[in-house]
Amino acid sequence: MESNQVCVFEDVQAARDRVYRYLHKTPLHEYAGLSELVGARVFVKHENHHAVRAFKVRGGVNLASSLDDASRQRGLYTASTGNHGQSIAFAGQVTGTPVRVALPEGANPSKAAAIRELGAEVVFHGRDFDEAREWIGEEATKTGARFIGPTDRELIAGVGTYTLEIMEAQPDIEVIIVPVGAGSGASATSLVAKTINSKVQVIAVQAERAPAIYRSWKARTITAAAMESTAEGLATRVAFENTLSMMLNPTTGIDDFVLVSDEAMEESVRLLVEHTRNLAELGGAAALAAAIQLKDRLAGAKVAIVMSGGNIAMDKLRRILG
Amino acid sequence: MESNQVCVFEDVQAARDRVYRYLHKTPLHEYAGLSELVGARVFVKHENHHAVRAFKVRGGVNLASSLDDASRQRGLYTASTGNHGQSIAFAGQVTGTPVRVALPEGANPSKAAAIRELGAEVVFHGRDFDEAREWIGEEATKTGARFIGPTDRELIAGVGTYTLEIMEAQPDIEVIIVPVGAGSGASATSLVAKTINSKVQVIAVQAERAPAIYRSWKARTITAAAMESTAEGLATRVAFENTLSMMLNPTTGIDDFVLVSDEAMEESVRLLVEHTRNLAELGGAAALAAAIQLKDRLAGAKVAIVMSGGNIAMDKLRRILG
Repeated sequence: MESNQVCVFEDVQAARDRVYRYLHKTPLHEYAGLSELVGARVFVKHENHHAVRAFKVRGGVNLASSLDDASRQRGLYTASTGNHGQSIAFAGQVTGTPVRVALPEGANPSKAAAIRELGAEVVFHGRDFDEAREWIGEEATKTGARFIGPTDRELIAGVGTYTLEIMEAQPDIEVIIVPVGAGSGASATSLVAKTINSKVQVIAVQAERAPAIYRSWKARTITAAAMESTAEGLATRVAFENTLSMMLNPTTGIDDFVLVSDEAMEESVRLLVEHTRNLAELGGAAALAAAIQLKDRLAGAKVAIVMSGGNIAMDKLRRILG
Repeated sequence: MESNQVCVFEDVQAARDRVYRYLHKTPLHEYAGLSELVGARVFVKHENHHAVRAFKVRGGVNLASSLDDASRQRGLYTASTGNHGQSIAFAGQVTGTPVRVALPEGANPSKAAAIRELGAEVVFHGRDFDEAREWIGEEATKTGARFIGPTDRELIAGVGTYTLEIMEAQPDIEVIIVPVGAGSGASATSLVAKTINSKVQVIAVQAERAPAIYRSWKARTITAAAMESTAEGLATRVAFENTLSMMLNPTTGIDDFVLVSDEAMEESVRLLVEHTRNLAELGGAAALAAAIQLKDRLAGAKVAIVMSGGNIAMDKLRRILG
């Protein structure tokens, strides 16, 4: 099954042209205030600058624009309220591909509205996401639409393009820290960075209160874990086979995996506002929280932190800024 | 004197290569929430995505990278705590040009620090900006360094590149709304947009409480006015000859000039957070405030608002978000 396939470096190179047809390269800015804080040279990869404020959109755009005309007409089906759903909706909008997103009955209406604003059809079905996903998967089979899971190969390939940009902008970067939702970011970053320069260290981050992929990586096998973090972008109940196997790859896999607390992410949201005037949701601030936690180890290094996930709720932002 | 010269379209075209050596193109995102609010299709030109969060950096980079080696070694001198000072410091840093910035004694230490963080030397001299500027100008004459005023031709030319990007991304844009500090943005936008498509309407915005350039444009002659706005990026006491004459040009000048209240800008800072999750200082939100004020006139049009100036103070942000 295509969605179980791992992605290779050539997939990322091929994604480049498709991605830049619809998206800008994002900047990698160095911020003196963050560098001082961490005691390293800290560069922020601004994946929050995309219209949907997350790197996932690169994957959606790559997938949607690699469809042939017949497949495009049959459309894209998925299930997600979060950055994944918005990314697929955005990709459909810019490529002229119909998108149907299934949400469980009673899902957050403002999130449904955000997906509709990007031109996608929202269908409520089932009691939870598992039911919504199962149902839309069956609908896709019936209609011949493409069902998109969270880690389809084309998604990982598209996401990999931001690491090509990091390596181009700072070829001597030493460490890249990436938040993990379904693992497409971390697995693609590691693949791309290490193919270009095997010395780059890639560190993945999850929430202490949602450590499924962390535990799976440590155990070298798929493991489930409780999901109690308020960092929605990092809320994953179980690891995915293809991204986990990419992260475990002995030559192009990640070097380390750390967990950060929700409190540390909230503090990093505040620090990002203070030092960069950019807004992150908790997951978007996870890489900074990890850098602060790993301060001693990173001392003096050139570090890129991936800021992806900028959709923080207004009331949460108010509370964090105090 | 070079700083009195008006800029022509060819200057902007020539600036392109120099600007993109050091800066990314910025996105022009359409936001459904803002479109609904204004009753038009609203696109935000994200000049806040630069490292110094303002379009002025394009001008600084263009100027610094057009110097010959001898001039570069003699360095760049200017006087400003604001986005101009930071932009010149940034340009010096990326092009390897020494920069000296004069500030009056007792100037805000955090702003001085922000300029130093970008590698520039800060020198305190004089009781106010006029004295600091006069002094650094004399120093430049003595040492052969280049003194940079707020509207030097190369600055306007560099700033003009964002409008090339707008016209490329949305060739059928109908209205562009630009905040006015010294007028480099508005004069360059109008020059570029109207050279490419004479039908584009360009509307400039100043603060009600700092209307010097507005009044000068209306009176068709340089006029001073009180400067009581808290929008630092728009705080100008008197118009500049070259940008005013460009804004008054019968074929490539601006179409209209409006004033907005500090309160309306504060409300627009809040609306930009709510609908785009981007942070603006008051001046960076002025174009949205103007669009809301001009709602009836803009109905149904394709409108670009320039978001430039993202350096809002933390306490002001907290107060505005309430």
